[in-house]
Amino acid sequence: MKVIKFGGSSVASAQQLKKVLAIVKDDPKRRFVVVSAPGKRHSEDKKVTDLLIAYYNAALANEETSELIQKIVERYGDIGKELGVDPSICAAFAEELKEVQTTLDKNSPYLLDRFLAMGENLNAQLIAAFFQQEGVSARYINPKELGIIVSDEPQNARILDESYDKIYQWHDCEDILVIPGFFGYTKNGDVCTFSRGGSDITGSIVAAGVKAEIYENFTDVDGIFAATPQYIHEPALIKELTYREMRELSYAGFTVFHDEALMPSFKAKIPVVIKNTNNPNCVGTMIKESYDTDSSPNHVVGVASDGGFCSITINKYLLNREVGFVRRILQILEDMNISFEHMPSGIDNVSIIFKECQLTPEAEAKLLERVQKEIEPDELEMEHNISVIALVGEGMKEHPGITAESSAALARKNVNLRMISQGADERSIIFAIRGEQERLAVRSLYYTFFD
Amino acid sequence: MKVIKFGGSSVASAQQLKKVLAIVKDDPKRRFVVVSAPGKRHSEDKKVTDLLIAYYNAALANEETSELIQKIVERYGDIGKELGVDPSICAAFAEELKEVQTTLDKNSPYLLDRFLAMGENLNAQLIAAFFQQEGVSARYINPKELGIIVSDEPQNARILDESYDKIYQWHDCEDILVIPGFFGYTKNGDVCTFSRGGSDITGSIVAAGVKAEIYENFTDVDGIFAATPQYIHEPALIKELTYREMRELSYAGFTVFHDEALMPSFKAKIPVVIKNTNNPNCVGTMIKESYDTDSSPNHVVGVASDGGFCSITINKYLLNREVGFVRRILQILEDMNISFEHMPSGIDNVSIIFKECQLTPEAEAKLLERVQKEIEPDELEMEHNISVIALVGEGMKEHPGITAESSAALARKNVNLRMISQGADERSIIFAIRGEQERLAVRSLYYTFFD
Repeated sequence: MKVIKFGGSSVASAQQLKKVLAIVKDDPKRRFVVVSAPGKRHSEDKKVTDLLIAYYNAALANEETSELIQKIVERYGDIGKELGVDPSICAAFAEELKEVQTTLDKNSPYLLDRFLAMGENLNAQLIAAFFQQEGVSARYINPKELGIIVSDEPQNARILDESYDKIYQWHDCEDILVIPGFFGYTKNGDVCTFSRGGSDITGSIVAAGVKAEIYENFTDVDGIFAATPQYIHEPALIKELTYREMRELSYAGFTVFHDEALMPSFKAKIPVVIKNTNNPNCVGTMIKESYDTDSSPNHVVGVASDGGFCSITINKYLLNREVGFVRRILQILEDMNISFEHMPSGIDNVSIIFKECQLTPEAEAKLLERVQKEIEPDELEMEHNISVIALVGEGMKEHPGITAESSAALARKNVNLRMISQGADERSIIFAIRGEQERLAVRSLYYTFFD
Repeated sequence: MKVIKFGGSSVASAQQLKKVLAIVKDDPKRRFVVVSAPGKRHSEDKKVTDLLIAYYNAALANEETSELIQKIVERYGDIGKELGVDPSICAAFAEELKEVQTTLDKNSPYLLDRFLAMGENLNAQLIAAFFQQEGVSARYINPKELGIIVSDEPQNARILDESYDKIYQWHDCEDILVIPGFFGYTKNGDVCTFSRGGSDITGSIVAAGVKAEIYENFTDVDGIFAATPQYIHEPALIKELTYREMRELSYAGFTVFHDEALMPSFKAKIPVVIKNTNNPNCVGTMIKESYDTDSSPNHVVGVASDGGFCSITINKYLLNREVGFVRRILQILEDMNISFEHMPSGIDNVSIIFKECQLTPEAEAKLLERVQKEIEPDELEMEHNISVIALVGEGMKEHPGITAESSAALARKNVNLRMISQGADERSIIFAIRGEQERLAVRSLYYTFFD
């Protein structure tokens, strides 16, 4: 049996929901349908979630909210009307929305969660009604009833392990279950939302819980590409990749979804396929634990990049002899709550690369001051606007020439390497470069290994 | 004016000392002559320093020592006799050697230092007498008189800054001063020796003290080679290199001398030239602070390698998000007094490379146990017998293709890269490889950039 999830743009309009219905009907194994809140129908449109945030802010400020409620209800009403769903269903949504405002203490840490969750919750009800009307034996199920129990962390819920057994009890349910994504319930019964990528994570949890044969994640793209379309015109679609490759790609710049959202499925070794609601015949991208032994993996599956890094470089004669030298630098970073990404080292120098957004100008001055004082480097240098590029592929370890090919490609384009790092796992090579050369570097690497 | 130093093999015999005299006479600027203890004359020979250690052990055990003393005196006596030096000079050495045994408390931490220092101290006296006899206006000077004041660290003395002003007072001395290398005096007047590379460091200190125009370091090789003759037949001689390049080369496997020994000269910006006592017409290797602006530096000046490393690799999902993750690992290493060399990192993994000799089998078990318990990695792997190869050159940063060329050379020979690391300074690229491929890797890199 399969768990299937539809993202915001897949459930944004009546037209999209007809596609969703066709997809669900197309395969009787699709028994658990996780849905997002309606996304944008066109680039100027507002997501229902954004309307809910406006409603939340107005409610908090004790402003008039009826107009906002009406706007939200209309979004569902328009869809329902076009689909021919009984109008009383969407009319009842107004009452549900009003209730949110009145039944929860305004000082509750879960207030925003409660508002946000409405987008998915109402949509799941509407979609279940639409399915029933079209003759599909489906029903809405609330995450509490399903058994999605989460930690007490508003807007950042984590699934509790006890959930899986509860969810498993539904594995042979006769009805198709339509499940709102993005939230669960704390042990105290509060609605608590996941962080970003919320519907993805619900789908992933349900797939793990019911022990699905596959988790189908429907989006508005054909799958995962070997490089970002922002830099490469019509990049190659990756047909198959491993969890680890996917993780390494999404680490640097792949925004199809947050890889963490897929962790529950990955841990349960359930394959995930990324498919396109608007092009369901495309095979999509299959993400598995490992390659079949008979299918030879690609050397390089993709090139990912991400900007906004900075580096601090410390030169000190004989630094490798000083036990605890680097540990003391990392202690300073830790004191300032800075997590770092890479730490290339030469003979008497070490660079530490981290996300620039962790540093205000004041924090930067403080960091440099502390390093200067506590580490007493011979030289100390801070560099901004660094991009990190990851070349990823499980097959790389069987092909020792990849490092040479990739660095030659970058050299031909005069890309100045700030760092090159290849660790023992040999699943990726990481280059740090100047931010303004990111596009150039991604293109040169992509065209070396693809096309 | 120049400071000139002769190593153990350069002062091991009468024949060698005649070469030394010729070299000193050849340039009137050579005013300060630092000498080692007599080294081996042939491969089965014993160094005087080794005889002194035997004498020390016998004295400590209250064994008969007169035979050992006689053996040591004979070494000097044979040389003196062949040179025609007044036999009474070497005869007096027996008294000096006996005195060591009687005048110092056997529990003194400086006892070994006192014994060891005799090798250089007696040789300087013999050489000064030889120079005088040959009409050179030279005299022996004791390091105490010269002003070499060191820290209270037996067998590991460090020069105290106040020494330099004292030494400078001798800068215009009319006599050529013959200085025993390897030891200085503590503030309390105890003889205290430097660690290995002892005569090199004395020469380097004297050069800095008297503000010499150059420090000439005479050895038994023509200079520094671009790779070790152990792997490469007749490797290219490096004519010129910078302090930093020299430091990076000597970091990995270059044993001409310990780079730390040259630090006093480097800090005072005094050029150092490595020359061959047995081939004084060879230009040798000049080590300077930087290249002259008009002389274009080589891209790669040398390839160095060193074995005996091991690595510990830790895989943990999302480790880069955990502030303090790596710091905690390094804390464990620090607690065990292990200093590490490199720390390449991938997306969810980090490897730590360090010298294997720091780890007993018990310590290794303890290290792995602590990492397992405190870090809770998804995977943990220990690898032994790793070699590190450094490709060094200041000019590399102007030539972005070096990384590509070098990794292509290694790939062609199927050298399996455990790590490649290139930091922001771009003066070196460091490869970690399997120990059994070290020779192959050095050869493939050498023949790529030289010949």
